[in-house]
Amino acid sequence: MEKIYGNHSVRAVFMTRPKTIKRLILLKGKKSFLNNEYIDLARREKINPEILPWDQFLQAVDLTKDDKHQGVCLYCEPRAIYNEKDLELLRDARCVLALDQVSNPQNLGTMLRNAAFFGVDALLLLKNRSTDVTPVVTRVAVGGAEFIKVFKVINLARSLESLKKIGFWVYGLDERGEKTLAETDFAEKTVFVVGAEGEGLRLRTKKFCDMFVRIPGGRVGLESLNAGVSTALAFAEFYRK
Amino acid sequence: MEKIYGNHSVRAVFMTRPKTIKRLILLKGKKSFLNNEYIDLARREKINPEILPWDQFLQAVDLTKDDKHQGVCLYCEPRAIYNEKDLELLRDARCVLALDQVSNPQNLGTMLRNAAFFGVDALLLLKNRSTDVTPVVTRVAVGGAEFIKVFKVINLARSLESLKKIGFWVYGLDERGEKTLAETDFAEKTVFVVGAEGEGLRLRTKKFCDMFVRIPGGRVGLESLNAGVSTALAFAEFYRK
Repeated sequence: MEKIYGNHSVRAVFMTRPKTIKRLILLKGKKSFLNNEYIDLARREKINPEILPWDQFLQAVDLTKDDKHQGVCLYCEPRAIYNEKDLELLRDARCVLALDQVSNPQNLGTMLRNAAFFGVDALLLLKNRSTDVTPVVTRVAVGGAEFIKVFKVINLARSLESLKKIGFWVYGLDERGEKTLAETDFAEKTVFVVGAEGEGLRLRTKKFCDMFVRIPGGRVGLESLNAGVSTALAFAEFYRK
Repeated sequence: MEKIYGNHSVRAVFMTRPKTIKRLILLKGKKSFLNNEYIDLARREKINPEILPWDQFLQAVDLTKDDKHQGVCLYCEPRAIYNEKDLELLRDARCVLALDQVSNPQNLGTMLRNAAFFGVDALLLLKNRSTDVTPVVTRVAVGGAEFIKVFKVINLARSLESLKKIGFWVYGLDERGEKTLAETDFAEKTVFVVGAEGEGLRLRTKKFCDMFVRIPGGRVGLESLNAGVSTALAFAEFYRK
């Protein structure tokens, strides 16, 4: 079962894949108009919402008071996760984000939120070297994770090759990129590749980039932006054009 | 005393205000080339670094293992914090960020990092309704907080008026803004006003904005970006031109 919590994330699951929802758990005493909203949504899907007092709620949802659950949590069938063989599904996609070893759940959540906001089609994650799309990640994404196709791939280089074969150009985000985002005429079908904070892109990933682009700015003592922020700047520039 | 921890933040204090440093505390066994760097920096300032084993280190720096201290922490005189009467200092500034009630330390830290990256001159915070520039905030800013003048103001509206008097135009970031960031010809001297996530700008703050600008994007179920991300998009657009 997949666990999803927080208002935005729960609403997004009701919006995108309501049939997968198995349990809806609400905190007793949560602002009543909010609980009523969820009760209505649940009834439409023939789910019987469980409304529990604080202690039982935390136990049922297996969260602590520090998790920003906002008094709402659901359990659903796990989201569809695609693999390398499914990349063909992106034939009509326009913009894809590929992550080279990003391991920070906050950053991954922010990236999913950014991607959903701008209309990015898919996210590629390294199967063995990235954080998973965990409950924390979907919470930080405030629903964004439901609007993006997630691919877990074993070999990022090979996956980039597959995307190139169906018409994509691959842009690596790199401080030493030859052009800035604003100077770049992005291809109709664009992949952005982003590395782990502090480490950047691996050499073997770099080999498969068609071009490197940079975000102009920085100073001695502060050379880079947060990886989540960087992806938003890339998406904004792509969709600006 | 102000406490600063983490590699980037500590380096930035040595770079910008070394004379304010009173104590430097290093974790014994931290990668030796890093400790040697700090020992050199400290000696130049005639500070005797304290190199402590794990338990004593955590006690001396009053942090837990979950704080991302990276084995380095310093205590220094508190940073200069300006107030409304000092706004005159911004006569030659080009870009200022004003926060209307932003209370999330992660977001504030990200904003300071973004501001330093792009070369923003100053940050205005509401004295009574914002998070402070705490050790967590400076840690998240990875040094960015040292490169930005921070003003704590009692009345944001009055402060915006003062800035207008010295030539600034005030742009409110708002989902319902009449123009997008890309469509806007920003003034030579620009203030960006950003509200709290989920709440946006207060009505009384809105009255003092010359114009509202929006970030194009969003969809039903995911209407907005994280406030930290939004500021980066605004700065990028301002400095793009």
